[in-house]
Amino acid sequence: MATIVFCSVNKTARTTARRCLSSYSKGLASSGESPLSCTHSPLTKLLPSTRWFSRGSSVRFMSHGTAGRAGAGRTRRGALLSGAAAVTAAAAVAGFLANANHFQQAEMATKVSPISEEKEPEGEILERCRGFMSPPVTDIGELQERKGEMRTRMEMLIMQTQADFCKALEVVDGGTFKVDRWQRNEGGGGISCVMQDGKVFEKAGVNVSVVFGYLTEEAAKQMRSRGKVLKGKDGKLPFCAMGVSSVIHPKNPHIPTVHFNYRYFEIEEEDGSKQWWFGGGTDLTPVYINKDDAFHFHNTLKEACDKHHSQYYPDFKKWCDRYFYIQHRGETRGIGGIFFDDLDSPSQEEAFSFVKSCARTVVPCYLPIVHKHLNDSFTEEEKDWQQVRRGRYVEFNLVYDRGVKFGLATPGSRIESILMSLPLSARWEYMHEPAKGTLEAEMLEALRNPKEWV
Amino acid sequence: MATIVFCSVNKTARTTARRCLSSYSKGLASSGESPLSCTHSPLTKLLPSTRWFSRGSSVRFMSHGTAGRAGAGRTRRGALLSGAAAVTAAAAVAGFLANANHFQQAEMATKVSPISEEKEPEGEILERCRGFMSPPVTDIGELQERKGEMRTRMEMLIMQTQADFCKALEVVDGGTFKVDRWQRNEGGGGISCVMQDGKVFEKAGVNVSVVFGYLTEEAAKQMRSRGKVLKGKDGKLPFCAMGVSSVIHPKNPHIPTVHFNYRYFEIEEEDGSKQWWFGGGTDLTPVYINKDDAFHFHNTLKEACDKHHSQYYPDFKKWCDRYFYIQHRGETRGIGGIFFDDLDSPSQEEAFSFVKSCARTVVPCYLPIVHKHLNDSFTEEEKDWQQVRRGRYVEFNLVYDRGVKFGLATPGSRIESILMSLPLSARWEYMHEPAKGTLEAEMLEALRNPKEWV
Repeated sequence: MATIVFCSVNKTARTTARRCLSSYSKGLASSGESPLSCTHSPLTKLLPSTRWFSRGSSVRFMSHGTAGRAGAGRTRRGALLSGAAAVTAAAAVAGFLANANHFQQAEMATKVSPISEEKEPEGEILERCRGFMSPPVTDIGELQERKGEMRTRMEMLIMQTQADFCKALEVVDGGTFKVDRWQRNEGGGGISCVMQDGKVFEKAGVNVSVVFGYLTEEAAKQMRSRGKVLKGKDGKLPFCAMGVSSVIHPKNPHIPTVHFNYRYFEIEEEDGSKQWWFGGGTDLTPVYINKDDAFHFHNTLKEACDKHHSQYYPDFKKWCDRYFYIQHRGETRGIGGIFFDDLDSPSQEEAFSFVKSCARTVVPCYLPIVHKHLNDSFTEEEKDWQQVRRGRYVEFNLVYDRGVKFGLATPGSRIESILMSLPLSARWEYMHEPAKGTLEAEMLEALRNPKEWV
Repeated sequence: MATIVFCSVNKTARTTARRCLSSYSKGLASSGESPLSCTHSPLTKLLPSTRWFSRGSSVRFMSHGTAGRAGAGRTRRGALLSGAAAVTAAAAVAGFLANANHFQQAEMATKVSPISEEKEPEGEILERCRGFMSPPVTDIGELQERKGEMRTRMEMLIMQTQADFCKALEVVDGGTFKVDRWQRNEGGGGISCVMQDGKVFEKAGVNVSVVFGYLTEEAAKQMRSRGKVLKGKDGKLPFCAMGVSSVIHPKNPHIPTVHFNYRYFEIEEEDGSKQWWFGGGTDLTPVYINKDDAFHFHNTLKEACDKHHSQYYPDFKKWCDRYFYIQHRGETRGIGGIFFDDLDSPSQEEAFSFVKSCARTVVPCYLPIVHKHLNDSFTEEEKDWQQVRRGRYVEFNLVYDRGVKFGLATPGSRIESILMSLPLSARWEYMHEPAKGTLEAEMLEALRNPKEWV
């Protein structure tokens, strides 16, 4: 049975989204069984000229430097993981190893107007865990003991997001997710939910991972070379990394692929203080352009962002287009969405609140689009074009995605969880180029010249 | 019409290969229309303890350092390109940029017993060119003017190899290769021959490239950091890189995929002297183990190698298993063959003679296997397993293959020629693991624990 999470941001999104989608959304809303509730106050003050983006062009998308410290919102740089598999155990660790020279400086908002903290859902930890796809990675007793800590709240959020999304997909597909719990020898583990060859979904993967341990010397050295100041106790730096990530490949070429990933990192220093940051994003990869779908998807994200900072959506939208770029093809992977990293401002509470809003948009961003195209008919040619686009998806994930790359390069990582983002099938045709004026050419044009959809 | 090249090494291979293959090979031999002829004298002296391999294990397969200088065989290090797309324009250049830290030291044979030089084929350059898939990259007049130079002889060899292989494949498939000539703005170009969705071959690509120009400062700096001594005239270092590379993906899962690549590099220094080296290899990727096929393939290569140095086959076989290794899967890509790089000893003439022997084994290594399984029936399950293995092929090529990686990262490279090595279709199943005792499990076992096939 689906637990569909809707909070106010989504209702707003539905209201403003185009009619064809909003009617379905209303149906969903009325059947919503969310254990979560949230309220938001409007932003009262915005920074006029925040910038999250690099100024050069040769290297892309990642910032670097020092991370936030608990509760302190300030200008900083930070470098971290990204991409579909970024939160798998190995990738989470390996991300720290990312070469500073490949990253660029990014300036973060130094101040964001206060926003009311979303209340934690009612009910005890134990009660909430009953709705998850599996018991959480961390022992429930331990979660209860440190209920107020960010890593507990984030673990509960990613478990909840996994459950809400999986259950919504199960309802629409009629199939059931295979749930694999796995452990990481060095500390932590994960829960991989995969539905393969379903009625609607060719391959659907939703992965949670919570990993911890000590930064390797190499990782700490690399982080320091990026400008991070890390003072370990006896040279040891305990870290904790967690996230939820998902890629959904539907069978019908008129239903787009979606990807999202929300993650949190903590490093504990000698004096017990913590450096922390959030990252994440949600993006859509259609096979054919559908402007209404694109508007609905982006607008839902925009409304979630706007509640927190008016620059979030435009900046994170641009960051997404830049990050999910297949350089050797001169195309983006899809029509984007939002992407951000190293978010440690204006406060931990508000950064978490923003991430929570994003995580809660996953279902209302995507499910209405799935339902809308569920019974669309398609031709063999349309299926072939989908397979060619899947080939491009594979190219991005294996060639560029940092999370995948570092995960694959790190011994002990769970390969199946990293590569569950790959489609069930894909195709590479030599010199494939759609004829002018076709719907395939229209799609390609949007990938070669990213558009504003809202 | 096929021009099938057989010289003595191949006849020997056929004689000793197992009966099921030799009968077919004889048929081929009797219909051979080779424009090439060659004679060999036996090796009279071998070095007892030559080593081409790295001693560590954390980083693999590539040597580095100074390259050979014309005519001088000596202990050295050298680093260069490898893989399916290594010889595409961009990759050829980008290979110079490879980070020295990622390569390992390799010691080369300092002396190999003299072997009679294979005679150049009879006939004028112009006459030989008529049998190629396209006019050579270099103007025929220029080739005639510098007929005796190694770069001319190598360009003729790679063009001949492309033609022989393409024509042999056309005969067995009944289809025709699409021939694309392309130019590289910075100098040189290539000829890509692709047959897609044929009767026998799902995708067959045979690419020649001949690129030249000046080393970029970055490339020269990187080469110097690897220990190469490069004295340019006014800071300029003219280079020339050329090669033939091919990947053939058949439809029938009982016909293996084959890959080969033979290449040559030259860098001209201030005083006009040239550093040069050869690289290459041929390897097989079956979907199911067939010991007779494996023996035939490896034995044909071994006999070609043995004529030149008794250590070539065992060492280059091992190098191949190490290079074509999918680290994150703990499997080799296929059952190997031979792989070598930075070959600049014992003399340019003898190194070329060895490369020529290798290039001439391509048809007799592979075509008998294709013919043998042409009419093998197969099930849907076998086709699925082939598709899963194709997925692994994509993983290797996009994640590890240096040629592909550098090619994709280099602006101006011809992406379609680099990625023609990818199969027409591939598949990724979550947690796919063949049941014990199955033929699929037997295949996997051979990939996890490389075997001696001869």
